[in-house]
Amino acid sequence: MRAAVLYGPSDVRFEERPDPKIVEPTDAIVRLPATCICGSDLWPYRGVAAVAGPVPMGHEYCGYVEEVGRAVTSIKRGQFVIGSFFFSDNTCPHCRYGYQPSCVNGEGVLGAQAPLLRVKFADGTLVPTPELPSAEMIPSLLAISDVLGTGWFAADAANVKPGATVAVVGDGAVGLLGVLSAKEMGADRIIAMSRHAARQQLAREFGATDIVVERGDEGVARIKELTKGIGADSVLECVGTKESMWQAIRATRPGGSVGYVGVPHGVALDVWDLFFTHVRLHGGPAPVRRYMPQLIDLVLSGKINPGKVFDLTIPLEQVAHGYRAMDERRAIKTLLQT
Amino acid sequence: MRAAVLYGPSDVRFEERPDPKIVEPTDAIVRLPATCICGSDLWPYRGVAAVAGPVPMGHEYCGYVEEVGRAVTSIKRGQFVIGSFFFSDNTCPHCRYGYQPSCVNGEGVLGAQAPLLRVKFADGTLVPTPELPSAEMIPSLLAISDVLGTGWFAADAANVKPGATVAVVGDGAVGLLGVLSAKEMGADRIIAMSRHAARQQLAREFGATDIVVERGDEGVARIKELTKGIGADSVLECVGTKESMWQAIRATRPGGSVGYVGVPHGVALDVWDLFFTHVRLHGGPAPVRRYMPQLIDLVLSGKINPGKVFDLTIPLEQVAHGYRAMDERRAIKTLLQT
Repeated sequence: MRAAVLYGPSDVRFEERPDPKIVEPTDAIVRLPATCICGSDLWPYRGVAAVAGPVPMGHEYCGYVEEVGRAVTSIKRGQFVIGSFFFSDNTCPHCRYGYQPSCVNGEGVLGAQAPLLRVKFADGTLVPTPELPSAEMIPSLLAISDVLGTGWFAADAANVKPGATVAVVGDGAVGLLGVLSAKEMGADRIIAMSRHAARQQLAREFGATDIVVERGDEGVARIKELTKGIGADSVLECVGTKESMWQAIRATRPGGSVGYVGVPHGVALDVWDLFFTHVRLHGGPAPVRRYMPQLIDLVLSGKINPGKVFDLTIPLEQVAHGYRAMDERRAIKTLLQT
Repeated sequence: MRAAVLYGPSDVRFEERPDPKIVEPTDAIVRLPATCICGSDLWPYRGVAAVAGPVPMGHEYCGYVEEVGRAVTSIKRGQFVIGSFFFSDNTCPHCRYGYQPSCVNGEGVLGAQAPLLRVKFADGTLVPTPELPSAEMIPSLLAISDVLGTGWFAADAANVKPGATVAVVGDGAVGLLGVLSAKEMGADRIIAMSRHAARQQLAREFGATDIVVERGDEGVARIKELTKGIGADSVLECVGTKESMWQAIRATRPGGSVGYVGVPHGVALDVWDLFFTHVRLHGGPAPVRRYMPQLIDLVLSGKINPGKVFDLTIPLEQVAHGYRAMDERRAIKTLLQT
């Protein structure tokens, strides 16, 4: 097969790779009709996170089961399945507690920007749809794999409740789907922070009631102004920088919550400062597996349409172009068709 | 009156100070039969927190209302009242949300190591007991003012639930009352970290089921061992150093919670490390006012006896001796009789 491999900063190649095979009896091989590029793929692409030699890229996927290992019992050949960015057995104590990315046997997914993927712990990792979905459902089902699941976790970790006032820091695909998630969880007011017209528009479609274009201190002041000086009940931090983290914390009311899902790069928190904010913090790699059955239902019922975040759809062979478009913020999120 | 004043490191004096007077119509003057020394008083006493000139010390109090300002409506002369370490109006949005130490009009208490105290926002700050308590109830009622309220908040912020496995980092009075609080909230197993015989004994009296004497990495390993490799559901951080904070975070299971109430000194958290732990963080200055009615009931019904943390009782005029005893860890907590 031909698949995406990152060689170094700005150097993504589409090249021949061996077809994946069943290795463990708990594996499955899934044929991916579509895959995509994640905001977190840009960290190594930009050289912010170092890569040691060529790395197969991609960790978001859904598709048709081609083959299963002999120990796989709940997943069948021919089913349409979705998995998250982390292989997990779904039986260890951390999985059963709902934190599958902390699975004691787990492992991060690599190499999903490809037509075929070997999925470990197929019974634990994959969730099948009740029937084969139509082609137009595929982008929204693919979004569940990471970007929707992560936005959903940000909202859940930020304790979004019906009637809540919510702010979302970050207008990438995760932030936008954080808006959608907060709306779905019953938030009354959703303040999206964005200075980018197309993203503001999508935020409004997903349920944002207010747009704040200011950043940093001014952004915080604006949110305070919009909330009668109180701050937001719940703030979703979907960037992962020191500035965005403090912006989120300072925009939150005392006793309110920040859900942080942006992979943190160079973020040190002075706990003295945090202490006096009375803000709750929860975050980390999203336990997408926990939310997957519910999110699949929401997508298939037509209640939510997270696939709208894909504003660029290109063939997988043009993957390098897809990275460039996201790096330059010309695309929110790139869907790659195999 | 004569009262405690800190002049600099290790220099507490008992000296003449003006009697407090009603200044604002919302004030009350309270006569304190007893007051006490807080672990946080040791930070300036040790010179870790700088003081600019002489500071009246003490922020824990309960006693008899001597006088009220003309705007005070719910507090009457002659009542026995308890207040927390923070004056709060209890009407602003942060107070109504249950975070009184973030009161927009609030102010920290100073000068309670004295026979008389001016209490601001008397209606908001003070809670009266249904009737005048007996003398033997006073230590436990005094404990509510900070040390019990703070231990209770640590347990609440750490989401202690019935049946939970809890670990407590810190064997000071707050940590010990964190054990009591976790027990009262229904924890099944309570692991106290202490290498001090008298404190271990009190921890067991308050409900600890296990004692861990190891610290740092070894302490974390021991807690993991006691919890089948999983970690505790809830961990109470009652110290405030970098070591204790990481010890707490690493002893917590993914998806579990750390409640941190030790005033943090020089604690910087790398959010990259925190991210992958999946641990929830909540803490800050305890909203004692929120818990006060419930804690007064628990004390007066005889269900809890937090006053046991006072293992040294001396006259207020010997306050300097009380500081020394706590500084040298010869006393857990010093009660000062006026």
